[in-house]
Amino acid sequence: MKKVRFRSNAGELTQPERVVIIGGGFGGIACARALHRAPVQVTLIDRNNYHLFAPLLYQVATAALSPADIAEPIRKILRKQANAEVLLADVTGIDAAGKAVLTDDGSRIPYDRLVIATGSVYNYFGNDRWAAHAPGLKTIENARAIRAQVLWGFECAERETDPDRRQALMTSIIVGGGPTGVEMAGSIAELARHALTRDFRRIDPRAARVILVEAGPRILSAFPDELSAYALRRLNALGVEVQIGRTVEDVTSDGVQVSGEFIRANTMVWGAGIRASPGARWLGMEPDRAGRIPVNDRLEVAGFAGVYAVGDTAANMSAEGTPLPGLAQVAKQQGEHLGRELGRHLRTGEEMAPFAFRNRGNTAIVGRHAAVFEFGRRRLKGYFAWALWAAVHVYLLVNFEKRLLVSIQWLWRYFTYQRGARLIINTPRSTSDSAGD
Amino acid sequence: MKKVRFRSNAGELTQPERVVIIGGGFGGIACARALHRAPVQVTLIDRNNYHLFAPLLYQVATAALSPADIAEPIRKILRKQANAEVLLADVTGIDAAGKAVLTDDGSRIPYDRLVIATGSVYNYFGNDRWAAHAPGLKTIENARAIRAQVLWGFECAERETDPDRRQALMTSIIVGGGPTGVEMAGSIAELARHALTRDFRRIDPRAARVILVEAGPRILSAFPDELSAYALRRLNALGVEVQIGRTVEDVTSDGVQVSGEFIRANTMVWGAGIRASPGARWLGMEPDRAGRIPVNDRLEVAGFAGVYAVGDTAANMSAEGTPLPGLAQVAKQQGEHLGRELGRHLRTGEEMAPFAFRNRGNTAIVGRHAAVFEFGRRRLKGYFAWALWAAVHVYLLVNFEKRLLVSIQWLWRYFTYQRGARLIINTPRSTSDSAGD
Repeated sequence: MKKVRFRSNAGELTQPERVVIIGGGFGGIACARALHRAPVQVTLIDRNNYHLFAPLLYQVATAALSPADIAEPIRKILRKQANAEVLLADVTGIDAAGKAVLTDDGSRIPYDRLVIATGSVYNYFGNDRWAAHAPGLKTIENARAIRAQVLWGFECAERETDPDRRQALMTSIIVGGGPTGVEMAGSIAELARHALTRDFRRIDPRAARVILVEAGPRILSAFPDELSAYALRRLNALGVEVQIGRTVEDVTSDGVQVSGEFIRANTMVWGAGIRASPGARWLGMEPDRAGRIPVNDRLEVAGFAGVYAVGDTAANMSAEGTPLPGLAQVAKQQGEHLGRELGRHLRTGEEMAPFAFRNRGNTAIVGRHAAVFEFGRRRLKGYFAWALWAAVHVYLLVNFEKRLLVSIQWLWRYFTYQRGARLIINTPRSTSDSAGD
Repeated sequence: MKKVRFRSNAGELTQPERVVIIGGGFGGIACARALHRAPVQVTLIDRNNYHLFAPLLYQVATAALSPADIAEPIRKILRKQANAEVLLADVTGIDAAGKAVLTDDGSRIPYDRLVIATGSVYNYFGNDRWAAHAPGLKTIENARAIRAQVLWGFECAERETDPDRRQALMTSIIVGGGPTGVEMAGSIAELARHALTRDFRRIDPRAARVILVEAGPRILSAFPDELSAYALRRLNALGVEVQIGRTVEDVTSDGVQVSGEFIRANTMVWGAGIRASPGARWLGMEPDRAGRIPVNDRLEVAGFAGVYAVGDTAANMSAEGTPLPGLAQVAKQQGEHLGRELGRHLRTGEEMAPFAFRNRGNTAIVGRHAAVFEFGRRRLKGYFAWALWAAVHVYLLVNFEKRLLVSIQWLWRYFTYQRGARLIINTPRSTSDSAGD
């Protein structure tokens, strides 16, 4: 790699600082890009070669989009940024004293500044064996496993003669009534009711059961009551059974135990809780209760000068004193802020400014052409909220080609109710077997 | 399934004949569709839930297209055909005496007429263990494994400091100089030379070696000399090393032994020979030397009344007395003919007409915007042949949405040299490990 030298304030030539960023999600990519003109050498490490537009994963899981539609090679994103390089590796730890990141192939990546942007994983609250039956929705592998499981269930139901087993094969249970759960439930219901309607001869896919289980008193609890109520009505209209105030007690390969009742199912999806990635453990520090790394208003980790955390893995307090939520827009703004301020600090020697989150509004999709949107006091629901969401998401997709393709697919689906990516590629071994990812 | 009754010639109501088709490739789908108005109940059995547009698989293997772009759910293709049903199952045998197809879940699917359209697999000429290192290009799993292997090789090369190992990580060997081998070699060379050029900091992807090994005296031996020579020039211009008249003696996880010389490589692809699927074995009959089922000019299997074979798995003699080649157009015409003639026979009682292949021309792609095309005495090469090929293939893609998407992707790539689907999803465990599929 060509080493670039910069002239410091004092005028002498210096080696640029080495900034290592762990994680190519919204936070890590935004930080790398914001360091574009900074006097630094950026190394971005990710275990995947692509940046994932995770808010649309549920559309891959329900056969509306292909993985490549929502994934962009990290190298391609950063190809024009001469001061950045990309490393495909699994991080195994951090040597904070020696200032180096450790990877699975035994390498040490030295750093002067470190940015931890490693996101979060699903939280099974101590029941990690449930993960094999009810995957979360964090990765392309998850989405593809869920897609194959749903479609495979209908295929097996078409051959099944026993009515109870047939119904179980056509049953999906989604755990957790947050945006992911609501989006998955709505989207599976639509897949069954519209895209697959005429495809089978013995079963009627519209007889599929889609059950959304929420332990709390209402779905979309981060939204105002009025929008929760609207989402509930829409899901009911799509045929989704929303079970409020019921607790998941067990998950097996055959179904879910919900408040004493065992419901047999083919597809189970977990969207009930989030746990931060192991960044705090790598640093040998105490995380907060959700596993996050406490950071100050400069996004710096207490006790670790020059180490920063952004996104889901950081516990960054809002002006109200609560941690900022695990949203793409939070991660992106933090990454941008950190990159920009770090660059300014290194160029000018001035202090880094504190980060302040600017809420861009919160949204969730409730099936076809219906969404809820909240922005402070403004609340939108229905078709217009969906159109707004669609426009924003198409715009946000990083690359022109993908933007174009996704919008064409959406338009086409609008007119035809079709799903274009209905592939069962890794055939689930058996429907009463692991739904694993 | 609703049973439809038909009035026979004699005027009495009869049960429609049960036609079972094994295989949802070009031959099987064409046959099912041609039986649209026939007085039959069609059951199409495939182990996958999609029909694959196999001639474009090499574009998935080289990150230009997504799997869903070239795969269409079989149920969707046949959804409006009331006399057809689809069964997702692995066929394990045929009970010819009892007239039933046996599947892996223990079912017996009874038939009155049977169509075997199960295609072919790659032939490793007795060295099946080579398949783990050098997959063929028959399935989406193959294409995705090759894609991950190529991209993963560049990622590892970027981290590798030893120059020999680095070169090996950037080396691909394609065995077999037929259309698939030529297309793969050209497409990998272009991926390295154009799409990836600026993505890495330590390696130059243009230093990648792409080696095409052909045992015979020239590549594209099914084409006239003039077109072979053109293809060779084009491949050389792309930087592909074409090794003519050299024999593969061994394939290991580290590379290929070619005429006494061991060449280290990361990606190996097999395109050297085809063997028919086990249809003949299922029937308990003697296949021809390539494993195919001999059929008469009505595509009926000798000694098995009411059993037919079409496509790669059938040895159907041309007017010149040689078996028709394993091409999509042959399979498609045979399937169409068989469906149409069978329907006519059942409606009218008239004899089925013999099949005659109508050659639509033969084509192969030699990298970007260059192709060879042969149609009897007409020969085309270069850009115009490519444009013709592209137009025909976009047209042939079965579904409107896909047709549109593929053409937009192609246009976009035309201007940008980009590859849109550069995802490493199932990370190869180690580069010196199995490239398996």
